[in-house]
Amino acid sequence: MPDVLAVDLGGTNIRVARVDEAGKILAHEKIPTPAAQGMGAVIADIAGLAQKLRAPDTLALGVGTPGVPDNETGVYRLAPCNLPCSHGFQFTAELKRLITLPVVADNDGNLAALGESWLGAGKNEHIVIIFTLGTGIGGGVVINGRVYHGHHNLVAEFGHVSIDYRGRLCNCGDRGCVETYASASALGRDAQEALRNDPAAKSSLLFKRCGGEAGIDKVDAHMVCDATRDGDPFATALLDRCCAWLACGISSVVNCFNPSCVILGGGMALAGDLITSRVNKCLDRNTRKYVPIWRDAKLVVAQLGDDAGILGAARMAWQHVEECCRTVK
Amino acid sequence: MPDVLAVDLGGTNIRVARVDEAGKILAHEKIPTPAAQGMGAVIADIAGLAQKLRAPDTLALGVGTPGVPDNETGVYRLAPCNLPCSHGFQFTAELKRLITLPVVADNDGNLAALGESWLGAGKNEHIVIIFTLGTGIGGGVVINGRVYHGHHNLVAEFGHVSIDYRGRLCNCGDRGCVETYASASALGRDAQEALRNDPAAKSSLLFKRCGGEAGIDKVDAHMVCDATRDGDPFATALLDRCCAWLACGISSVVNCFNPSCVILGGGMALAGDLITSRVNKCLDRNTRKYVPIWRDAKLVVAQLGDDAGILGAARMAWQHVEECCRTVK
Repeated sequence: MPDVLAVDLGGTNIRVARVDEAGKILAHEKIPTPAAQGMGAVIADIAGLAQKLRAPDTLALGVGTPGVPDNETGVYRLAPCNLPCSHGFQFTAELKRLITLPVVADNDGNLAALGESWLGAGKNEHIVIIFTLGTGIGGGVVINGRVYHGHHNLVAEFGHVSIDYRGRLCNCGDRGCVETYASASALGRDAQEALRNDPAAKSSLLFKRCGGEAGIDKVDAHMVCDATRDGDPFATALLDRCCAWLACGISSVVNCFNPSCVILGGGMALAGDLITSRVNKCLDRNTRKYVPIWRDAKLVVAQLGDDAGILGAARMAWQHVEECCRTVK
Repeated sequence: MPDVLAVDLGGTNIRVARVDEAGKILAHEKIPTPAAQGMGAVIADIAGLAQKLRAPDTLALGVGTPGVPDNETGVYRLAPCNLPCSHGFQFTAELKRLITLPVVADNDGNLAALGESWLGAGKNEHIVIIFTLGTGIGGGVVINGRVYHGHHNLVAEFGHVSIDYRGRLCNCGDRGCVETYASASALGRDAQEALRNDPAAKSSLLFKRCGGEAGIDKVDAHMVCDATRDGDPFATALLDRCCAWLACGISSVVNCFNPSCVILGGGMALAGDLITSRVNKCLDRNTRKYVPIWRDAKLVVAQLGDDAGILGAARMAWQHVEECCRTVK
């Protein structure tokens, strides 16, 4: 049976899997990313692991990366913070040379969206958008089962959709970017600030759980969600506000794309219904009852966890194989 | 030579044109829309005028409407304010019956984008988005020369991209929708309010030109632009602020789509460089210098004026003809 190789290249680890046409992972392995040794070492390690896992019928290799490879040339257009050595690197060309298989690469946010739309929360959906809530807010768009790439594969920057033109200053130079309000990092930082400055904080469960003043620096989004689940009004107010901000950003994106499905992914989305119920409440109150575009878009939580990216990479490789077959015919 | 018919159905007028494959208007005519007599009368008038203009080699008919016909069935999913009788109407089916030609319909915002990308400001562009600045802010997206339709053709609602989560309340139920800040109507309304309440207004050119207190109600976006062009600091401040709001909305949309081209259309865009220079200044200051996604997107003014919609309708009809040919083959 034919299969493809899928690679999830992260700043910390490289994961490689062999995946069949139905999305079943047949074999997989993980090694540390030698980021400090430069892209030559990174790509040699990917190729080595790929050769090891490769089968006689392996047809292609798909790679998800934290950077933004140009969707036509595979050259990196942006050096991501966790792989600075990748800037300008001829990624797919180099990898193809080492592995002698057709190679395709894409941004890992795009591929998480593709994976979820193939086998996860967006299965059988017409138009899928994903918000990945982590250090920042990433995004991806899948239309009729294909990743939407924009002009130079620089989308989907949902984290930089502004929810306040005079709001918080973002690293990108703009103001009010939703990732400065509603990413996991932002929620953690806001919680720390409130614990330090809000007099009401001292009687909260969150304050008690983090060990008081000395433990405030450790507070993160996960702890805010846990304290909310356990009924802490202080944490609840923080999460309510964060989800209202997120709803505002999602609403703008829905008005752009008219999706059939909005997926929340990333670490923070593991809180599941705690987040979706709040975001849905804001959307119902604001727009959903009036506006058909919003009735189209159901809000769901990602289902594939850490496998979304690698399965998306496999799907991309399969799509590449299909295209090559069509061209040959 | 074969041609197609293109219809621009508005709340006030119906325009019909016969258009060749290069986009040349071979014949055209305009009649008032009998909106008060219901959609039966409207569609009979469209069919009558179309029969009159039709040539022996006319292959199809494309209609742009202010409503939102479902892109597959042609049934209206929303009744637009200026054609309330259209709600739920079997638009394309009825018209096809009367005219015995293949009929395709789409929202006029989408078709303005398609027209501009075919023959106007977005010619030869990979991904075109249009902001139509009028009573509200309409939108359209054209990807590789095809309209992007979303799940149920309910896009692109760029006017409802929020620029302030706690901002102005919009008719849609949401807050901060950019059309409540940066449409032609919003600029006119803001100018009137400032003329009434701002003490500095009384010494402005705008106040003088409108004839003082008694004329404030007549002030519109056009007058604000004219006074700005003539150096009035009061009007300039109003337009600066309006363009900063618009830039915030545009920036969010660019972060969603990574377009190669952003077109400003509608009545207010006739002010041309007066608007684009201000929006560009905001974008340069905020994001363009840091972010490649913004360097991709050039900002331009629509070129086809009132013909954008009808040419877009013609292009859609031609695309339909091509698709039918492919299917037959």
